[in-house]
Amino acid sequence: MTPVTTSGAPAGGRYDVVVVGGGVIGLAAAWRVAARGMTVAVVDPEPGRGASWAAAGMLAPVSEVHHGEEPLLALALASARRWPAFAAELTEAAGRPIGYRTTGTLVVAADDGDRAWTEELYGFQRELGLEVQWLTGRSARRREPSIAPGVRAAIWAPGDHQVDNRLLVGALLDAATGAGVVVHRERAAALERAGGAVSGVRLAGGAHLGAAAVVLAAGSWSGQLEGLPPGALPAVRPVKGQILRLLPSERAPVLTPTVRGMVHGSSVYVVPRDDGTVVVGATVEERGFDATATAGAVYELLRDAHRVVPGITEMVLGEVATGLRPGSPDNAPMVGRASVRGVEGLVVATGHYRQGILLAPLTAQAVAAVVCGEEPPDEMAPFGPGRFTTMAARAGP
Amino acid sequence: MTPVTTSGAPAGGRYDVVVVGGGVIGLAAAWRVAARGMTVAVVDPEPGRGASWAAAGMLAPVSEVHHGEEPLLALALASARRWPAFAAELTEAAGRPIGYRTTGTLVVAADDGDRAWTEELYGFQRELGLEVQWLTGRSARRREPSIAPGVRAAIWAPGDHQVDNRLLVGALLDAATGAGVVVHRERAAALERAGGAVSGVRLAGGAHLGAAAVVLAAGSWSGQLEGLPPGALPAVRPVKGQILRLLPSERAPVLTPTVRGMVHGSSVYVVPRDDGTVVVGATVEERGFDATATAGAVYELLRDAHRVVPGITEMVLGEVATGLRPGSPDNAPMVGRASVRGVEGLVVATGHYRQGILLAPLTAQAVAAVVCGEEPPDEMAPFGPGRFTTMAARAGP
Repeated sequence: MTPVTTSGAPAGGRYDVVVVGGGVIGLAAAWRVAARGMTVAVVDPEPGRGASWAAAGMLAPVSEVHHGEEPLLALALASARRWPAFAAELTEAAGRPIGYRTTGTLVVAADDGDRAWTEELYGFQRELGLEVQWLTGRSARRREPSIAPGVRAAIWAPGDHQVDNRLLVGALLDAATGAGVVVHRERAAALERAGGAVSGVRLAGGAHLGAAAVVLAAGSWSGQLEGLPPGALPAVRPVKGQILRLLPSERAPVLTPTVRGMVHGSSVYVVPRDDGTVVVGATVEERGFDATATAGAVYELLRDAHRVVPGITEMVLGEVATGLRPGSPDNAPMVGRASVRGVEGLVVATGHYRQGILLAPLTAQAVAAVVCGEEPPDEMAPFGPGRFTTMAARAGP
Repeated sequence: MTPVTTSGAPAGGRYDVVVVGGGVIGLAAAWRVAARGMTVAVVDPEPGRGASWAAAGMLAPVSEVHHGEEPLLALALASARRWPAFAAELTEAAGRPIGYRTTGTLVVAADDGDRAWTEELYGFQRELGLEVQWLTGRSARRREPSIAPGVRAAIWAPGDHQVDNRLLVGALLDAATGAGVVVHRERAAALERAGGAVSGVRLAGGAHLGAAAVVLAAGSWSGQLEGLPPGALPAVRPVKGQILRLLPSERAPVLTPTVRGMVHGSSVYVVPRDDGTVVVGATVEERGFDATATAGAVYELLRDAHRVVPGITEMVLGEVATGLRPGSPDNAPMVGRASVRGVEGLVVATGHYRQGILLAPLTAQAVAAVVCGEEPPDEMAPFGPGRFTTMAARAGP
């Protein structure tokens, strides 16, 4: 294990803010909080290597929209609007590119059966006033010649973009440490409390980090930190995702937009990177904390991706990654002050499920606001961490 | 690169025999020739890492039989008969196991369409007097519960066995060096000749190895050695094969025999190893010397393997390997004295296509006989390297 970084620790070993979890949410929050002039530490044995590492990096509020999740859409659109400035500022701060691409997303119907699903999605998107365009199969192929000849129709979503999630977490780590954030490469074991408020974090190795505020951004593991009163533990569960990376080669299809599709009821996406890598994802599996890569997932992802972009079969399978998305009961994040007593100073930022990368700018802004005693952006209001606790209380006798 | 091994080189730097190519054929031949008391060198930049490394290690003359290849069947059966003694002697000489398993092979018909093909194969096998048994789907599942519920019928071939090809080449390397064989880890560039006979081999680095006899066992590359008269170059071409290795896990199916099948016209095999690894192969592709692993091959192999042994989808995809099988015009090997003038002392042992592992004992025996001035075993008689040269001459004006 990399030794604990101690340079930059404040005098007395007490930080203004300790962030538990160094994924895209924790790192972005730490960076934004440090920009407010606070002393900040991030605690994570492997920063950037969890669900953020496995992700595809799609910034796709429009093609990810689902019935019944309209409030989440507003949140996603609000964060998407922040992405251009966030990307520019981060690229500047880190001094290197993050693979931010604004090449749009094509949602294809692989055959007649899938067309019905695509039409319904399009109707819903139009109802919501989203920027989408219906394309015939021919028009879709004109826009992107690499899609399958059998594609019947497609939705063009020009505002659904992407970022290279691995470049992103690397840049966030650099930007955060550049802004004075101290990274402790160790597991956080417990929240420490004194007099009804948080007082710091105990690390697995036994060290203590004093803090006036603690941000809980540990993804799927957010419900496992010791020392919290039961009602304060976020209701997150791991939702396993398996995802492939196909390596660049001469024979690879030249793909410009992200291509998504429903293939016989399975959702698949094919995301081209600047370097020619193609990301194919992703399974959605309820398997607890099992993060094993399986041959079956590889098979299904390649099968479905091949139906929408046949040329991927000529590429080299470079990697099978798995990640555990932090799922919440309503698939939306939990961001804000803890809703129970006795943990004054605890801020929750987890449960981002499939949209952690997209929601990072708005979440980081919200966390920075809350630790500074301000209100978070309006769009975040419906997503406080207390909403499930309240529901549970209402459901009781 | 590992430095050239020079210990054990004979005085004057001249060997009795230099073997070009350190795959299963070259190594087995070198071991058997050294056992005759000769000084032997093997030249290969990476011994054991070519087609022999990618292989599945099936010893399956019965389930590999094809119409029109009856002489090859006799050869394969003759080599299969030598396998038990060869395995025992090699295990003894190397001092470690080679994963030799005599658990039989089940050839399954995945559905009604594949049943016709399986019945025809069974009829042909019976005609040839081979040891096979027809099983109903129910009997096949009783023999091997891991096969798919949909399997309609199967052929049971108890005499089709397997060896762990990677343990095998490692053991051959140890046994050969233990018997005094010197391994030059370098590419052979050219055959050297003097007075109508071979005089040695020039290495890519410029060194010369003197030899009274040279064995050309360079697999797909056997047609590329410089310094041979054109008619002496074996008519081999690379036939690409891609093959998967699935890693052991708790959730893996417990598989005893090798399971083979035809799935909608594609042949697939699923080979269980002692350690729980499962080997799934293999594509047959005419792509020249391209040895790229492709996502399409992974997809097709998993698709077809899943049809015959569904439980493999729970396993972890550990490796995609590619190999270039040395194919000859009639899919049979070329073993024996070179048939043209001016290369006295040249012995060819290549073109083993899909059966190099199976044919290694008999080929090694044949090579040892030939370099000692004896006749090779009778079964090898039809497979001299001159048969294509003769055909070409007959076809001429």
